[in-house]
Amino acid sequence: MKNNKSKNSFSLESIKRLGLYLRNLKELKETGVDIISSDKITQFLNVSPEQFRKDLSYFGGFGKRGVGYNVGRLIEEIENILGVNNKWDIAIVGVGKLGSALLGFEGFSRFNIKIAHVFDSDKTKIGRVKKNVRIEDIKDLKKVVKLNNIKIAILSTPPDVAQPIAETLVSAGIRGILNFAPVVLKVPDNVSVSNVDMACELKSLIFFAKKR
Amino acid sequence: MKNNKSKNSFSLESIKRLGLYLRNLKELKETGVDIISSDKITQFLNVSPEQFRKDLSYFGGFGKRGVGYNVGRLIEEIENILGVNNKWDIAIVGVGKLGSALLGFEGFSRFNIKIAHVFDSDKTKIGRVKKNVRIEDIKDLKKVVKLNNIKIAILSTPPDVAQPIAETLVSAGIRGILNFAPVVLKVPDNVSVSNVDMACELKSLIFFAKKR
Repeated sequence: MKNNKSKNSFSLESIKRLGLYLRNLKELKETGVDIISSDKITQFLNVSPEQFRKDLSYFGGFGKRGVGYNVGRLIEEIENILGVNNKWDIAIVGVGKLGSALLGFEGFSRFNIKIAHVFDSDKTKIGRVKKNVRIEDIKDLKKVVKLNNIKIAILSTPPDVAQPIAETLVSAGIRGILNFAPVVLKVPDNVSVSNVDMACELKSLIFFAKKR
Repeated sequence: MKNNKSKNSFSLESIKRLGLYLRNLKELKETGVDIISSDKITQFLNVSPEQFRKDLSYFGGFGKRGVGYNVGRLIEEIENILGVNNKWDIAIVGVGKLGSALLGFEGFSRFNIKIAHVFDSDKTKIGRVKKNVRIEDIKDLKKVVKLNNIKIAILSTPPDVAQPIAETLVSAGIRGILNFAPVVLKVPDNVSVSNVDMACELKSLIFFAKKR
């Protein structure tokens, strides 16, 4: 009945925000800004000052109140926290339209993330090469993931097979799942699940559009 | 330099969580559960008790501590808050792989969201019909959005055109943008932007996988 989202959901969000901060800070640096006040940085990053301090304080707290932040140093610190210089091979399970879109997504390289393996059950797809990656048979999922020591997978399968595939992934050693299937995955406590729910995203925007 | 994410980012997250609660509560109800204790419900929903109470308290606070929650009533209350019984027509701009995947996504109907208009600049795509929706010329974006009183759009264009298209959307009356382009959109304060950043999502999972 539970995955471990509750246990570290705040921290997952905090890490996600660090990723966004990093992207924006790099943009800022390119415009020639070296030092920025704490007021301006939180305005620029679209985050409350409390949230920003909290996110950084988890990792030691750098930058001094009143003095401002050195943009270059902040970028370095966040890069160290996120370990952006380490390469990560991940797998995609399900190469439908969404899986294909993710396979072609160029933004992953920003964090040194490489889609190393893709799997599908469709015999007409297996063996085909997309974006330099050969689509493998889902029957080999456990073997290949284990052999290559893959720890992170994207699940972009139809909802009805998502749970059994998640279980296969976990048994193969996967420790993080980015789930696009609109189901609540049940996984052990030592596995993180991050759900991308487009309908909920849209609904929240609609909610605010209505209020205005 | 700013969009209004900071102003209501917590509330946006809170509304998103209500959407997830709703989905899970419906699953729970189908298994025959009518009353659930506050301990069990937060465990089931993968949320901390504090977060859950906070999310509900924004909207009046229903359910009594110690007594537990009536699942059916909770579903109704959340449905009322989210306004799931109102139909919403939205637009998609950019019908590449991701846009096509979104167009085919069946989960939107859960919230009565209908993709009413799709736009692209590719002459070979314009006029084609996908999932019963005719792809329209991006040149007509402003006119069509205005005429049909569309308030919410999904942006799934290449990054380099995302900002100018966002500006056109805003000038046409759009009040919420679900942004898949890996750029920080600058929009007026009365427009909400929700960013889906796959790379950040994955990076946060990797972070936790490394810690274990």
